[in-house]
Amino acid sequence: MSLLITNIGELFTNADHHLSRDAAVIVDGERIAWIGPAADAPDADARIDADGAAVLPGFVDSHAHLIFAGDRAGEFAARMAGQPYTGGGIRTTVGATRAASDEELRRNARRLVGEALRQGTTTIEIKSGYGLNVADEARSLRIASEFTTETTFLGAHVVPAEYRDRPDEYVGLVCGPMLAAAAPHARWVDVFVERGAFDEDQARNILECGRARGLGVRVHGNQLGPGPGVRLAVEMEAASVDHCTHLSDADVDALASSGSGICTCGWSDRTVATLLPGAEFSTRSPYPDARRLLDAGVTVALATDCNPGSSFTSSMAFCIALAVREMRMTPVEAVRAATLGGARALRRDDIGVLRVGARADLIILDAPSCLHLAYRPGMPLIRTVVHGGRPVGAPR
Amino acid sequence: MSLLITNIGELFTNADHHLSRDAAVIVDGERIAWIGPAADAPDADARIDADGAAVLPGFVDSHAHLIFAGDRAGEFAARMAGQPYTGGGIRTTVGATRAASDEELRRNARRLVGEALRQGTTTIEIKSGYGLNVADEARSLRIASEFTTETTFLGAHVVPAEYRDRPDEYVGLVCGPMLAAAAPHARWVDVFVERGAFDEDQARNILECGRARGLGVRVHGNQLGPGPGVRLAVEMEAASVDHCTHLSDADVDALASSGSGICTCGWSDRTVATLLPGAEFSTRSPYPDARRLLDAGVTVALATDCNPGSSFTSSMAFCIALAVREMRMTPVEAVRAATLGGARALRRDDIGVLRVGARADLIILDAPSCLHLAYRPGMPLIRTVVHGGRPVGAPR
Ligand SMILES: [Zn+2]
Ligand SMILES: [Zn+2]
Repeated sequence: MSLLITNIGELFTNADHHLSRDAAVIVDGERIAWIGPAADAPDADARIDADGAAVLPGFVDSHAHLIFAGDRAGEFAARMAGQPYTGGGIRTTVGATRAASDEELRRNARRLVGEALRQGTTTIEIKSGYGLNVADEARSLRIASEFTTETTFLGAHVVPAEYRDRPDEYVGLVCGPMLAAAAPHARWVDVFVERGAFDEDQARNILECGRARGLGVRVHGNQLGPGPGVRLAVEMEAASVDHCTHLSDADVDALASSGSGICTCGWSDRTVATLLPGAEFSTRSPYPDARRLLDAGVTVALATDCNPGSSFTSSMAFCIALAVREMRMTPVEAVRAATLGGARALRRDDIGVLRVGARADLIILDAPSCLHLAYRPGMPLIRTVVHGGRPVGAPR
Repeated sequence: MSLLITNIGELFTNADHHLSRDAAVIVDGERIAWIGPAADAPDADARIDADGAAVLPGFVDSHAHLIFAGDRAGEFAARMAGQPYTGGGIRTTVGATRAASDEELRRNARRLVGEALRQGTTTIEIKSGYGLNVADEARSLRIASEFTTETTFLGAHVVPAEYRDRPDEYVGLVCGPMLAAAAPHARWVDVFVERGAFDEDQARNILECGRARGLGVRVHGNQLGPGPGVRLAVEMEAASVDHCTHLSDADVDALASSGSGICTCGWSDRTVATLLPGAEFSTRSPYPDARRLLDAGVTVALATDCNPGSSFTSSMAFCIALAVREMRMTPVEAVRAATLGGARALRRDDIGVLRVGARADLIILDAPSCLHLAYRPGMPLIRTVVHGGRPVGAPR
């Protein structure tokens, strides 16, 4: 089954060809089969008229926490009335998640993944981290793997209340039986490296154990203050270090010079800085300085951090608008970070880009240019989503 | 034709009864006929199961500029790269608007009003102000009146290029033949009181001429710097003064003590402060301090300022999220300002509130509480819109 998308006003490929007018795309099965001038397009089984709209790769949301139960709207309202965000509310969600049935967790995740897909997110990473015991971390990842291949074991999200006075014992549990139960369902291992969560040595220990099990490495770092997260991530050759709000010059240098430099395509072994402006929005915190990272040559991704505590949005378009308003990215840089940047943060070369052979994940906007994602903040601009070659019902 | 809305998780009425659980609403024709506990609800011709969702009045967007042609995405991108906003780009839109056919203006307005309605805006004010000559201001208002009763003559948006050296002559045109041609299609008169636009004497002259024609008074004031806009608005008994970003203590006091105090219902003759955070977002300007106004007892409204230059969003939900993040409003205050506040800014008592006899304009959210409008920023949370008693196809 092939599909011709024609009458494209602006084609945003992230690849060499940056055709801006009268382009067409042909999808065949799950892959992109052809890109070129509309006048030269071969025939296809079906056709979508983009009516002059912009077409771009589906968003790649490389950072989301979607396996949970409960709602923290009340905590949010209290925080907006002046209470600071410390991350302590995570334990509220842990309690609700442990108490929930598999079917409740699955239904909530299905709802959130569906919301994200209708908003253009065609690849989403999903972390565990609200179970924090062997059984609940394992089932969180088992359920996550029903929705995505990009599953991340985050048993080291926070030390649960029952281990408050014996954190090293908890680290032992994470590295031992919890990792053993989680690893079959996970592609990645992640640690929240932050004062109040895990220190550098604990984090290195956990990441090394995960890597020994064949998991790729990711890090939550430098969100609430300066810390060792970024340098540890680079040292461990992590695919990404996420948040990056409080960076020293040494952190920026480490990111800029990460990777072997051997791979000329540039994406395969660098540590990406993944910025999560939804979290700064919803915790009323200062935003990371994307400009500083971009100017230093760091690869930047944008993701939602979708979770019920600090960033309950799955809108990549909203993150793009914030990145432009608050983080000194240009609209084009922000759109690239939300697509190609996310793909790099997941070490994927088959998504985040429109080229022949890539996955047929793309968005047709309700706008003539990708600039509108920043120019029209808060608007439902996602007209049509094509996911693995198949058009999805989109919010209109 | 009557309609029963049942299984409401939270009913946000803005009226006395603030039922939060198991409420039901009956709509009959264009009006609300009954509100009470679901168990006591009489029968109706049709039924909507809200499935535990929050129900609130339709948004009242009391400030929008929807009669224009063209697109200023490029200017937006340049501004985000560092160029300051001065309002000068208005003239770009004036050129495009004058050159457009009636049908082009109508089609663009229809598209924008439809977008706004699907996002929950059941009442929208529409201004002229991109014609700036007799014929184009009159046709702008004629077209606007096809979409709303809340039409505003803003011939005094900016002095057009051809009058640059004779602004008082332009004021004479506005007060004379332009007002005469516009008034039959307008409910309100408005002036942009700002350095670079119109000064206090010019503005008073225009507003007095409009009032003499039977138009209600509104003012654009104190957006880009301190100025006489707010005090003039209160002096002229304007329904609203809009922007209010740069206020002196005297401005706040004037707003707080506006109105005769005779009407105990409070809404009929005060001057509302209408805040437009979309404009501050898209011009990267400091936000107004809503907390200061609320604490002083001022009536506050939120509106989008939807226009192609400084705020190309029609999402009231986005404005609510910004008001909470950036302007120190609580979520409940922000939702009230986006509904009841807008109604007061338009001196309407039949909208912005859910009570028996009010217009049946309401929103069923895809969320259990109105808090989610701030808690889930950027999300398409508007599940169903009922407009004048009739359900509208909503974005899903
Ligand atoms: Zn996270
Ligand atoms: Zn305006």
